Amino acid sequence: MSTTTPHIPDPVLDLSGERFTAVYRLTAPTEAEARELAENAAVEQTVEFPLALVPRGDIRQQIVARVEAFAPAAPGPHGPAWEATLSFAVEAAGTELTQLLNMFLGNTSMTPGVRLERFDLPRALTKHFPGPRFGQAGLRERLGVPDKPLLCSALKPLGLSAQDLADMAYEMALGGIDIIKDDHGLTDQRFAPFSERVARCVEAVARANRETGGRSIYMPHVTAPADRQLDRAREAARLGAGGVLYSPGLGGFDAMRQLAADDAVGIPIMSHPALLGSFLTSGHSGLSHHALFGQLMRLAGADASVYPNYGGRFATAFTRDDCRDIAAGCTVDMGTVKPAFPTPGGGLTLDRVPDAYELYGEDVIFLIGGGLFTRGPDLADNCRYFRGLIGRE
Amino acid sequence: MSTTTPHIPDPVLDLSGERFTAVYRLTAPTEAEARELAENAAVEQTVEFPLALVPRGDIRQQIVARVEAFAPAAPGPHGPAWEATLSFAVEAAGTELTQLLNMFLGNTSMTPGVRLERFDLPRALTKHFPGPRFGQAGLRERLGVPDKPLLCSALKPLGLSAQDLADMAYEMALGGIDIIKDDHGLTDQRFAPFSERVARCVEAVARANRETGGRSIYMPHVTAPADRQLDRAREAARLGAGGVLYSPGLGGFDAMRQLAADDAVGIPIMSHPALLGSFLTSGHSGLSHHALFGQLMRLAGADASVYPNYGGRFATAFTRDDCRDIAAGCTVDMGTVKPAFPTPGGGLTLDRVPDAYELYGEDVIFLIGGGLFTRGPDLADNCRYFRGLIGRE
Repeated sequence: MSTTTPHIPDPVLDLSGERFTAVYRLTAPTEAEARELAENAAVEQTVEFPLALVPRGDIRQQIVARVEAFAPAAPGPHGPAWEATLSFAVEAAGTELTQLLNMFLGNTSMTPGVRLERFDLPRALTKHFPGPRFGQAGLRERLGVPDKPLLCSALKPLGLSAQDLADMAYEMALGGIDIIKDDHGLTDQRFAPFSERVARCVEAVARANRETGGRSIYMPHVTAPADRQLDRAREAARLGAGGVLYSPGLGGFDAMRQLAADDAVGIPIMSHPALLGSFLTSGHSGLSHHALFGQLMRLAGADASVYPNYGGRFATAFTRDDCRDIAAGCTVDMGTVKPAFPTPGGGLTLDRVPDAYELYGEDVIFLIGGGLFTRGPDLADNCRYFRGLIGRE
Repeated sequence: MSTTTPHIPDPVLDLSGERFTAVYRLTAPTEAEARELAENAAVEQTVEFPLALVPRGDIRQQIVARVEAFAPAAPGPHGPAWEATLSFAVEAAGTELTQLLNMFLGNTSMTPGVRLERFDLPRALTKHFPGPRFGQAGLRERLGVPDKPLLCSALKPLGLSAQDLADMAYEMALGGIDIIKDDHGLTDQRFAPFSERVARCVEAVARANRETGGRSIYMPHVTAPADRQLDRAREAARLGAGGVLYSPGLGGFDAMRQLAADDAVGIPIMSHPALLGSFLTSGHSGLSHHALFGQLMRLAGADASVYPNYGGRFATAFTRDDCRDIAAGCTVDMGTVKPAFPTPGGGLTLDRVPDAYELYGEDVIFLIGGGLFTRGPDLADNCRYFRGLIGRE
């Protein structure tokens, strides 16, 4: 080869042989084209180099991803589709979630027709990504709700003062909402500064708990500039917040892992889908609902994963089947990574709760925001009605 | 209103009245549906609350985004389209890039048919986001190349040792490549650990520079876990790297802003598109090429923005017009935010350079990776040929 192209070394890599796998859906007019998409992804996601020039030793044999399986899949709205399973050397991802994301879909995110469906990681990788600190069981224990769905609502609209939001939190806690979270548009705006908001909302929820004997918690939104995010989450914990809301689309997936791993934070994390819709609006590329709002959120440390429920104002991109897939991704066996709560919101209304209860079963957090305001004049009473819908009196 | 719904306070917000604007492309079958998409986005991106319940004072008048303009646009592959300009109170974004991203497209990323085309920020916001530290002029000065395109190549394939990569960097610098960057798959894998790799590549490029009198630089990839990213970039600078490569899709946009703002980093930043393709593969949602690889990369501090050139292996999602739009986004007037270099790569080959030169003109960085290996056996000579193509002898 060295007579026509520059010499590329052929190192012996001493790899463990352990591999992780990712399943991709390939949408293409023909099987041959779908297979080509899979084979190109195997190269693109690893060596990103003309395969003919890659030496035949360990780089070609172990670093280049392998197409382990290839089979027809059910056709979708964009035409015929196939599924391919690719395997990767664990040492290529190393110990970093950023690089694992890169291997899942880095360059291939720019190739229409390739969608990451799901993945399977060996212990050699999950040991670096502990996932949710609490998971479903741990969050239930903290909230003192051993069974039945948990209830969540959001403090809004943007523009209210810290005290206005705290007053609203008080009513919600009085009405028995388990998790009262910030709207994800709340950060540190001057009309409701972070520290003041957290202090007032924590106090308001604690006051309501004293009156009801309940164990409601407040979760402030802690997504922030990179240099302030961890401090904001630690401050929330110090001020007595029962958890934090975080938007990995805005602040990064690995930064959520960092929050989950940090002992000075040490409280549950709920993830928000802001900016992440683009991974699935094409329908043929990016990430599946299952991978994005299920597996990936868990891997990055979310105890609960918020996404829009079917039938609401985001119905085009979230069908009932999509939501079922998310719930499956929140609980599918991932070894040491605990199950997270699917948390359907985004237009969920009181009248849709019974059907949603039937779909999701017990292990779900129902998130209703604006919909709690339209039933009647008494917010706490609307919340009690919400509790009644799932049989929690 | 309080007789049928809970009371929502109506605070006086004392806002400056300064607003920023974002232009959205709305793809829908009819004008009425497109207008509804725009009006829904105005609510969704701000108060995320039933508009009928939002009090009529400052929240309704100033916090809810305003649809300032609405007009037909050229139809696209997904049907008829319109363009709407929305304006937002600067105080709603506050001083945080994470929240600005949220206001641009947070929840609306989950609504197919709404794409952010471009944006315009007043000084009240750009003062918080200084953008590229060097920009086009500053990078040219550091490299000693006052005109004509700059040349870039990448060290790969993944699996080579630090010394192998350094040997390759030496050849490239000898051949006159201005910027020799890591492949974005290189992080801190044990076969080419970060510190060793940076030290060896910096040394190799310096040695070549001494022989040629050139001023080539090495840019290691510094995307890393959230708690190590800044340190890695600082270490790169300390070890003598001439810049860093960073992937905001993997590590977050605001973390790039942090790198650009950090005096202990203080070297140019090249952004990589890994994982970001999903923002544009739908063609009707997410972000435009102009906004994503032009304006947003600059706002977040990139001196050069890598993306796949038209005609290469990512041609489906990157047409010649898309690439022209990216170049425009890299240089369009953004007040105090300096212009960045469009850096087309991803399948750019030597034979396509002349056409690309015609499209982009002088102010561009041409990135050829694998394509430099297929011309002949001498890598340095292939690099010299690349220089010759743009008239730099």
